[in-house]
Amino acid sequence: MKHETLPRNEDGIATVAGVLKQRFGDRFQTGQALREQHGHTTTWIENQPPDGVVFATSTQEVSEIVGLCAQYRVPVIPFGTGTSLEGHLNAPAGGISIDVSQMDRVLEVNAGDLDCRVQPGVTREALNTHLRDRGLFFPIDPGANASLGGMTATNASGTNAVRYGTMKDNVLAVEAVMADGRIIRTGTRARKSSAGYDLTRLLVGSEGTLAVITEVTLKLHGIPEAISAAWCSFPTVDAACRTVIAVIQYGLPVARIELLDAVMVTALNAYSKLDLPETPLLLLEFHGTDAYVREQAAVFDDLASEHEGFGYHATATTEERNRIWQARHDAYPAMLQYRPGAQGIATDACVPISRLADCVTAAQERAAELGLVAPVVGHAGDGNFHISPLIDMSDAGEVARAADFVTWLNGLAISMGGTCTGEHGIGQGKRPYLVDELGEATVVMKQIKRALDPLDILNPGKIL
Amino acid sequence: MKHETLPRNEDGIATVAGVLKQRFGDRFQTGQALREQHGHTTTWIENQPPDGVVFATSTQEVSEIVGLCAQYRVPVIPFGTGTSLEGHLNAPAGGISIDVSQMDRVLEVNAGDLDCRVQPGVTREALNTHLRDRGLFFPIDPGANASLGGMTATNASGTNAVRYGTMKDNVLAVEAVMADGRIIRTGTRARKSSAGYDLTRLLVGSEGTLAVITEVTLKLHGIPEAISAAWCSFPTVDAACRTVIAVIQYGLPVARIELLDAVMVTALNAYSKLDLPETPLLLLEFHGTDAYVREQAAVFDDLASEHEGFGYHATATTEERNRIWQARHDAYPAMLQYRPGAQGIATDACVPISRLADCVTAAQERAAELGLVAPVVGHAGDGNFHISPLIDMSDAGEVARAADFVTWLNGLAISMGGTCTGEHGIGQGKRPYLVDELGEATVVMKQIKRALDPLDILNPGKIL
Repeated sequence: MKHETLPRNEDGIATVAGVLKQRFGDRFQTGQALREQHGHTTTWIENQPPDGVVFATSTQEVSEIVGLCAQYRVPVIPFGTGTSLEGHLNAPAGGISIDVSQMDRVLEVNAGDLDCRVQPGVTREALNTHLRDRGLFFPIDPGANASLGGMTATNASGTNAVRYGTMKDNVLAVEAVMADGRIIRTGTRARKSSAGYDLTRLLVGSEGTLAVITEVTLKLHGIPEAISAAWCSFPTVDAACRTVIAVIQYGLPVARIELLDAVMVTALNAYSKLDLPETPLLLLEFHGTDAYVREQAAVFDDLASEHEGFGYHATATTEERNRIWQARHDAYPAMLQYRPGAQGIATDACVPISRLADCVTAAQERAAELGLVAPVVGHAGDGNFHISPLIDMSDAGEVARAADFVTWLNGLAISMGGTCTGEHGIGQGKRPYLVDELGEATVVMKQIKRALDPLDILNPGKIL
Repeated sequence: MKHETLPRNEDGIATVAGVLKQRFGDRFQTGQALREQHGHTTTWIENQPPDGVVFATSTQEVSEIVGLCAQYRVPVIPFGTGTSLEGHLNAPAGGISIDVSQMDRVLEVNAGDLDCRVQPGVTREALNTHLRDRGLFFPIDPGANASLGGMTATNASGTNAVRYGTMKDNVLAVEAVMADGRIIRTGTRARKSSAGYDLTRLLVGSEGTLAVITEVTLKLHGIPEAISAAWCSFPTVDAACRTVIAVIQYGLPVARIELLDAVMVTALNAYSKLDLPETPLLLLEFHGTDAYVREQAAVFDDLASEHEGFGYHATATTEERNRIWQARHDAYPAMLQYRPGAQGIATDACVPISRLADCVTAAQERAAELGLVAPVVGHAGDGNFHISPLIDMSDAGEVARAADFVTWLNGLAISMGGTCTGEHGIGQGKRPYLVDELGEATVVMKQIKRALDPLDILNPGKIL
């Protein structure tokens, strides 16, 4: 999938590159491999590398770089770990990638207040390793080991969102560099606030188009007294989805409830050396006290039985539990291995829970009609699922059918009262669907973009 | 407390009033009593009435009225039930109050998806009455029976926020009329979304300064299988606060945990004919299954005992439970009756939970030093509390000391990493503290305000 290129400011880019080389020495790089690695690399969207990569080590440096780029009208693209899925890192007008992966310190953990402050390059796994001895954890877990700055920028979520919410619900405040180089802090450590416009949530999910995030204040959670994971098989995806709907409508506070179709389970068995039954599967986790976890599991078992669930299995050890969730997080590489040489397309529809079974089933039927191999995995408790066509990019017909499929699916989700993106963001790939979904509201988004980034230097060609 | 008046556009106001009279007949009113009732009436902030009140009955009418006011550069102030606490309804530059109280229909309840769509004039009690037979409820409960449009505009919360979050966490989308009359919808019914800038959360808490909210899509919750309320007395406010801190750090999922000081309990006993022990008190509620509620109550009892709690009482009947929460919701009128003739000041500090005991205790000592009568009531689990000086407005010295107290308290909360407003909003009263709290971020707020309301007609003189 090729996205448009935008007009390049060659003179500005050359000037900025010269200044950055002088100012940052080896921390400014222009080698092709590194530049390509800082563009989009994860899905069928074509790579559009930036002109140079600068490794920033402080907020002041980010402010200086953005100020310089503003002076010469050169695009700036923030970079964390490079795991985004909608072309967020591409440089369609060229420009400078600001790599914040060296800004990787946990600055403060306030255990008594269940919060912490981190630099944007800290990854979710690094944070959880840092927190483990304090009995705390940070729940948001996209598949990849993404950076917390990037997760903030895309409003990431993952398997725990059904219980713990998304980044939107877990970011208390950010420090950010605006398009004019100004450094702001958008909130405090208070758990709630009605103090003015919610710049925190405006910047969460703004995909680098309104500001460069240089620090994040996060809510933390106590590691539950008891954690129990389980899986359960179903004869059809429809039966599994109807079980999820029953769980949510019942109000059962599951911590995780993930759907995998038979193809996805087959791919995981091969990639992660598992021997799960190769039928639709729900993977679950329950958090609470010992007694409450047992109570939840029993209710789930009842609900699953009413929907033809079979083979209910509760994990016996922490190792077994960790193994199954690691496999779940490896779903994307597992599906790429399932069809070697193919490129993945990460769709991300999210619908009201009552429509989940209809939406997933219709999507599977459509993919089959179009002759597409498209495993399904998803955060079913949120109504969010990923059906991911695996495409032979040398087959123009298949590429065209996949493009039709994506358009059709996003339209279906929107027609069901849902969204084209539950957690991946708009980036380059979903811009047309944003207009389909929110209409006139996108005019207001443009007004905000123009007000905060009048020169359009912050990650141009994304969202709007 | 008198706030500045702003320049009036007399010609524009006269023209708009004439057009509205012709267009809306008796639905446009200019009588003084009605106009004053549509200005601020609830605290010591002086009333600044609008020039006229128009009762709108549809989104299209609101759009038409805003469009007219934009044409003649006349201020527009949205009005729900008039219960806001920071002067949000005042008209310092004159203008038109758009009363949406007749837009009071519940448009749609999707029980299976746990969501609903309401007009802005629906009150929280009316919605819950509407929902009760479906086994659902909407948890956000500011003291007053406020409108859901107003609660959205101020990002209200209340006693349940510790478990269920604030309006920010429970509004899925709004329909709103922008300053140019444009009607937008900011989101879908999906439970989560990364689709573009989060206009929903930008408008939640924008206090009528960016848009007029004409419809709200809300998350709902199932009425828990078991609900248990309780109270427990403490020798000091410090001991009660330390218990709350222990509860939150333990991770006990209390649905409500409210703090009242001895003066507040005395006021409630008198107003609501109760006989609570007149010492600091925590009021609690637990939600869950029968077994889980019992388990939570037992843990709380242990934690309270470790902090000198005594007189633990679990409510025996639904009537007793409803009676205690009704009394809690009547705290504000109860304290006004406690000192007849006085005006209230509704402070609203919110601090990280570890600082709660220090902040409340310091505030009580400071109030005592200044000779102020100032009962304390608060959503202690969020670190949010209201210490409310009751002021004899004819005593200039007392008024001045109260003003000093408010400034000192907001500074203290901010210095502790907290906010000057957990749930009431900035309005007129807290504008200076917003700058103290968020500094340069207020410049970005002004950029957004200018972009979305270039003529400054939407609720001028508020927030910024």
